[in-house]
Amino acid sequence: MAGMGSINIAEKLGLITEHWSPRTVATVNDYDVRLVKVQGEFVRHQHAESDEFFLVIDGELTIRMDDGDVTLRPGELYVVPRGTYHQPVSEAETTILLVEPSEIVNTGDAGGPLTATVTPI
Amino acid sequence: MAGMGSINIAEKLGLITEHWSPRTVATVNDYDVRLVKVQGEFVRHQHAESDEFFLVIDGELTIRMDDGDVTLRPGELYVVPRGTYHQPVSEAETTILLVEPSEIVNTGDAGGPLTATVTPI
Repeated sequence: MAGMGSINIAEKLGLITEHWSPRTVATVNDYDVRLVKVQGEFVRHQHAESDEFFLVIDGELTIRMDDGDVTLRPGELYVVPRGTYHQPVSEAETTILLVEPSEIVNTGDAGGPLTATVTPI
Repeated sequence: MAGMGSINIAEKLGLITEHWSPRTVATVNDYDVRLVKVQGEFVRHQHAESDEFFLVIDGELTIRMDDGDVTLRPGELYVVPRGTYHQPVSEAETTILLVEPSEIVNTGDAGGPLTATVTPI
């Protein structure tokens, strides 16, 4: 059990049932700290206006980019530079912590059915 | 071994020898992702202009604040609101991931001998 005001990542992840639907667990100024469960292939997209921070909590995430793949395991992080097309994919269910400006939409310029409304959890 | 471009937190922490001296492992726009090893008592201080994100990787961190303590264990995070006095303390060596604007100085308004020049690692 987390103490006063602290956020336990595992507890929050236990409340998340949907894939590819980030939930905000904290804010740092105008940035969101988000948790997301993923499995399968996400849509290839980019965020023209912002870098995007990925930290794998559990599982394994591959970020496909035009100049190669980045594979992240627990305790590994990567920042996708702004304007860089990336496609997150994951064979098994994987949990990720994201840090990005609060206005960033998960599907970036691609839009489509995987676009999520990010709500707190 | 981390793959192309990815950052392995444990590997980076293995390179850090000093306590209370954050090192930047990545940037997200104008924010730094920093790793720091701590032990003992830090100076009580505040950052008037910014929130500060703490995620404990290993060990246990207590953040003393005027209205109570927040204790963080591995996988637990907390955001100290801007303008809030806080004093990080840790009995045993503890490792922390911080996210905050790149211009933030570790000792905030307190200054003093624990003020660190943050360099990449």
